[in-house]
Amino acid sequence: MAERVAASKKDGHGLVIVVSAMSGETDRLVSLAKSMSPEYRGREYDVIVSTGEQITVALLAMALSTLGTPAVSFLGHQVRIFTDSAFSKARIQEIDTSMLHKALAEGNVAVVAGFQGIDPDGNITTLGRGGSDTTAVALAAALKADLCEIYTDVDGVYTTDPRVCPDAKKIDKISYEEMLEMASTGAKVLQIRSVEFAAKFQVPLVVRSSFNGNPGTAICKEDASMEKVLVSGVSFNRDEAKVAIRNVPDRPGVASRVFSTLAAANVNVDMIVQNVSQDGTTDLTFTVPRSELAFALKAVAPVAKDVGVTKVESNDDIAKVSVIGIGMRSHSGVAAKMFEALAQEKINIYMISTSEIKVSVVVEEARMEAAVRALHAAFDLNH
Amino acid sequence: MAERVAASKKDGHGLVIVVSAMSGETDRLVSLAKSMSPEYRGREYDVIVSTGEQITVALLAMALSTLGTPAVSFLGHQVRIFTDSAFSKARIQEIDTSMLHKALAEGNVAVVAGFQGIDPDGNITTLGRGGSDTTAVALAAALKADLCEIYTDVDGVYTTDPRVCPDAKKIDKISYEEMLEMASTGAKVLQIRSVEFAAKFQVPLVVRSSFNGNPGTAICKEDASMEKVLVSGVSFNRDEAKVAIRNVPDRPGVASRVFSTLAAANVNVDMIVQNVSQDGTTDLTFTVPRSELAFALKAVAPVAKDVGVTKVESNDDIAKVSVIGIGMRSHSGVAAKMFEALAQEKINIYMISTSEIKVSVVVEEARMEAAVRALHAAFDLNH
Repeated sequence: MAERVAASKKDGHGLVIVVSAMSGETDRLVSLAKSMSPEYRGREYDVIVSTGEQITVALLAMALSTLGTPAVSFLGHQVRIFTDSAFSKARIQEIDTSMLHKALAEGNVAVVAGFQGIDPDGNITTLGRGGSDTTAVALAAALKADLCEIYTDVDGVYTTDPRVCPDAKKIDKISYEEMLEMASTGAKVLQIRSVEFAAKFQVPLVVRSSFNGNPGTAICKEDASMEKVLVSGVSFNRDEAKVAIRNVPDRPGVASRVFSTLAAANVNVDMIVQNVSQDGTTDLTFTVPRSELAFALKAVAPVAKDVGVTKVESNDDIAKVSVIGIGMRSHSGVAAKMFEALAQEKINIYMISTSEIKVSVVVEEARMEAAVRALHAAFDLNH
Repeated sequence: MAERVAASKKDGHGLVIVVSAMSGETDRLVSLAKSMSPEYRGREYDVIVSTGEQITVALLAMALSTLGTPAVSFLGHQVRIFTDSAFSKARIQEIDTSMLHKALAEGNVAVVAGFQGIDPDGNITTLGRGGSDTTAVALAAALKADLCEIYTDVDGVYTTDPRVCPDAKKIDKISYEEMLEMASTGAKVLQIRSVEFAAKFQVPLVVRSSFNGNPGTAICKEDASMEKVLVSGVSFNRDEAKVAIRNVPDRPGVASRVFSTLAAANVNVDMIVQNVSQDGTTDLTFTVPRSELAFALKAVAPVAKDVGVTKVESNDDIAKVSVIGIGMRSHSGVAAKMFEALAQEKINIYMISTSEIKVSVVVEEARMEAAVRALHAAFDLNH
């Protein structure tokens, strides 16, 4: 890593490098915190887990100096990356760039700890898992950088996961919106928030491999060429569970009660489908992350009883498959083509949800991989 | 540790707890730094090693909260413990107590990371090994605390090391000056700088065990009762080497050249003895830490050659034994009694050095333990 940075510095670039913790270190630190307290997330948790990046910034700065490339490390509080006070999932509010500009003006590479900041009271905060991507994009925006490169263990963003579909192709260029939908619907390559940040501040992003010099995937503003592609990628998510509330009295306020109860229980509801009412009742179906299914059922039970519902069904062997492409805006028939491809494979669709540039379906988990491969072929992503 | 703190808080004390890193952690961090760079001590080194205490403060604060005792952790930069910029051996310059007073006023236990501070530019600094003692004493002085307790793995300060002399007795009360001489001459129980700090600001100290409730040793201003004791303790140090420069021309400026050369080479000279001149030449002998002997010889060689000295001898199988007591100020004969006790044991004395409350001798290392036991008995420290 140091050699790569040193070479780029020699090419004349002013560089700010954001680093994560060493592999396994954050898990080790989380275990330490857990060992001490059952309610381990909070102010002190962030003090502990932020040490992972504190060590790697200093090690990289040392390695760079050893290579003759002057470098200085910065922690969140030294840059002054201000966040809110939501410990372990803080959001960046403001970045003071003066220290970094000074370091760059003095000819140093600035090595900044990812994933961490301080709140207005000087408490250490962390941004949540994968937060280093967000730190990098936020710094690039604040510094008005020419480019933000995200180095990872794959060559870039693929049309779908090559482990599921060996025909998957690396995408050369993709729009912020598509990348955001890809990340939101299960693609793991970038943290959702980092893409939101990049889109909001129009930061030119490149995702590329740490292990080779391949050009990677550019994530940028959409251009005319992108619209010609109907579907850019197929994403999927196994971490899904479905709750169906049967025969809900079809009167105003029932859905509102159900979902405000779930929100109060901190359950993240994803898709919501309400069937057309026939006999004065309706079926209300929604999906939640699998780990939150038990909380969701517990939260919903008293409401269901209260409105006279006798049947709440749940199902955690489902998965969500999505096709994404800004070309959908100007082309109709994507959903139809998708359903046809799934029908040909005899894959049953449980739920459907659409946005302007995305169609998602919920299918049986056992058929998910077949669905991904069928859609990848149907939308001609193999070529 | 948390249970002990919680109990003390229940007794109504306002508490600031200073913690060190976990056992072995600082060594692990030093190895990491060393693995990255041959010149591993510097700004980035301090960023790395300071994480050890960052983790323990947060863990202790979590443990206290779990016990129902509200607690907040503070890092050096959060308290604002200002030091100079001498990385890895910084000295505390100023402490801002406002954040700690606020935490205490809100009913919290303040848990502060030992060993670390920031310089005026916001760089993280560390105080050098054992620096947590110094942090504790400095905070006690700045906060005008009633008492600073140092918890360690022994019951307190002993008349000498019980591993060398099984008759050693725990001292109930000792003056700052004696403790300072004990620490300077080899007693390991407290870091020298922490005692200097305590003496300068008259911080009442107690050294006691982490593992039991015994009262420990009080370190305080001298009082009348202390002067009655001729010798309070016998200390020793094996980390000694001796350099003798023979037949130095006895003219002004030679000693000055030797010792300024050694200072420039960062060699810590301890004892210096110059024999009476006879034939226009003199013997100049000094001791240095054993690890610095090679540097000392290398530094001295050109100077010796320059002034026409043909013989520089060195010796690293020596040790220093010291007797310490403020009673010496008003009693004569301590040195004589010491030499007599050593003579009875047929222990040869190589060098002698005295201060107002201390007599040190250099002896053969193989006889050091015998010397300690003889002196311990001669000054009646067994009772």
